[in-house]
Amino acid sequence: MIVVLTGGTGAAKFMQGLQQVAPARELVAIVNTGDDLVWWGLHVSPDVDSITYGLAGLLSSERGWGVERDTFECLARMRAMGAPAWFSLGDRDLALHILRTELLAAGQTLTEVTAHIAKQLAIQSSILPMSDQRVETRVATPAGDLNFQEYFVRERHQVAVTGVRFAGSENARPAPGVLDAIAAADAIIIAPSNPITSIGPILAVPGIRNALQETRATVAAISPIVGGAAVSGPAGDLMRAQGLPVSLAGIAQAYHDFLDVLIADDLDTAEASEVMQSNLHPDLRLHFCNTMMTTPEAKVGLARETLSALGVAAGGAPAPVGVR
Amino acid sequence: MIVVLTGGTGAAKFMQGLQQVAPARELVAIVNTGDDLVWWGLHVSPDVDSITYGLAGLLSSERGWGVERDTFECLARMRAMGAPAWFSLGDRDLALHILRTELLAAGQTLTEVTAHIAKQLAIQSSILPMSDQRVETRVATPAGDLNFQEYFVRERHQVAVTGVRFAGSENARPAPGVLDAIAAADAIIIAPSNPITSIGPILAVPGIRNALQETRATVAAISPIVGGAAVSGPAGDLMRAQGLPVSLAGIAQAYHDFLDVLIADDLDTAEASEVMQSNLHPDLRLHFCNTMMTTPEAKVGLARETLSALGVAAGGAPAPVGVR
Repeated sequence: MIVVLTGGTGAAKFMQGLQQVAPARELVAIVNTGDDLVWWGLHVSPDVDSITYGLAGLLSSERGWGVERDTFECLARMRAMGAPAWFSLGDRDLALHILRTELLAAGQTLTEVTAHIAKQLAIQSSILPMSDQRVETRVATPAGDLNFQEYFVRERHQVAVTGVRFAGSENARPAPGVLDAIAAADAIIIAPSNPITSIGPILAVPGIRNALQETRATVAAISPIVGGAAVSGPAGDLMRAQGLPVSLAGIAQAYHDFLDVLIADDLDTAEASEVMQSNLHPDLRLHFCNTMMTTPEAKVGLARETLSALGVAAGGAPAPVGVR
Repeated sequence: MIVVLTGGTGAAKFMQGLQQVAPARELVAIVNTGDDLVWWGLHVSPDVDSITYGLAGLLSSERGWGVERDTFECLARMRAMGAPAWFSLGDRDLALHILRTELLAAGQTLTEVTAHIAKQLAIQSSILPMSDQRVETRVATPAGDLNFQEYFVRERHQVAVTGVRFAGSENARPAPGVLDAIAAADAIIIAPSNPITSIGPILAVPGIRNALQETRATVAAISPIVGGAAVSGPAGDLMRAQGLPVSLAGIAQAYHDFLDVLIADDLDTAEASEVMQSNLHPDLRLHFCNTMMTTPEAKVGLARETLSALGVAAGGAPAPVGVR
């Protein structure tokens, strides 16, 4: 069993590659829910959605979120009726949020709803929300405290960040299956996701960080920082706000207490000594390869490299749904 | 002020004609909510929707319900995820239900939500749900007790009907403004709607029937029965199930205690004597004209004839949105 801690778009692409080289049934994604929001009264879980769509072969490769070839007729009517419209939900995408909201209202947990939807979409891997309790990523800015989507989408992450916190995390519990998966895993991968707001909320759920420290599985992280900057999104700004250098060393530091292998881009080989000299990681191994998932082949290549660095044999059996 | 008791598609077409010949601000539609349903967790109010879309110039003229040129991408995804899909909500149409559900959940009444949406759509007439309490039309069939949409849409009204009841009506109150509008009206029109399941629920709300008996306004009804059959839909079957003849006399009987003028189609002049000999309506006036709203001009013509029969002067000022 291979367990992957995942955030949004980069993680979804990575999972698409991974399901090409490992048996789908042996993959478990533990997914950030700190970005979740109630939008138009609907429960939207952006990272769960991206992983779900990615594994179902439905993810928009153009946008990196939502459903391929979606339309936005409902959004246009909402705007015409004066409803807020800065968060884009496509017509096809809406179905998932409507169904999730209905099932949650009927008393199902987010874990149950996520599994039900994955089953309906013929996904064979497990998708586990990090927690069934609400943990909300709050981004402190000079203009006030924003939820993640307000910061990321509405403000297009163009406001200064002075801090990040995970409201509700102290009372959250890992969702059913999360701790067991980490304990029983053959290998654990931290997807190339923002360490602060994609992986950070997962680590903030009491018990998960400890399980990562204690698991006998090797833990690898793929750096989302290449050439001193985030491959996409605001990871750099957020790392800086949390006092981490925007570099491989910063990633190593974020995961210092449980990381065994850091997978980094070939572009960053010069940073190896800095990481190794940090003293924080006497046993940390560095593995350099191409981490830029710009093509379907590159996604598969990164998955193969990651499994190789973890000492797990990669297979070549194609997954039931295609990589895009 | 002209008050119109309305159901679904026929009523929406009639309102479109009426707003061409009477000042929009002086029109009040009291709308059946017995057909309402919670679908995918969303509060759908089919008759309120049809009147709203009709007055906003958005109603699909092809289908008679929903929004013109709508698409059904969300529905297709719901079906793909195994959700029930027999009730069609278009992508544009969805916005209205999502917004209504959100505002109801936030504590607004159906009356407030309906008024808010009408305002956003620049509708100048008043749209009043019959009640803010839930009244549910239940259709008894040999196969069991169905709600109206199960009977009408899912079963395509192809099952036998043994009775109709309005669950919850005994505890419902007329929505704010309903009784005042009936009392203060210059004229009252019963739209060409199914008397059992479109107008029946309105009359079942305690106080409304009595207000119609007591108002000083002249009350006219436009017969939805032409040539011994319903112009559209299952009105005939439902009237029969409730012991009413499927004829002008049946319509007169349904409204016997408050009706002043019965507007009937030219095709039915031969039925005049039967209606007048029923003894139930010593003062009932019959007015024959073309009631078939097959063109925009015919909608306007029926509205003019109706106002004329009521002794109300029809204007020619065009409404702000077009008839389709």
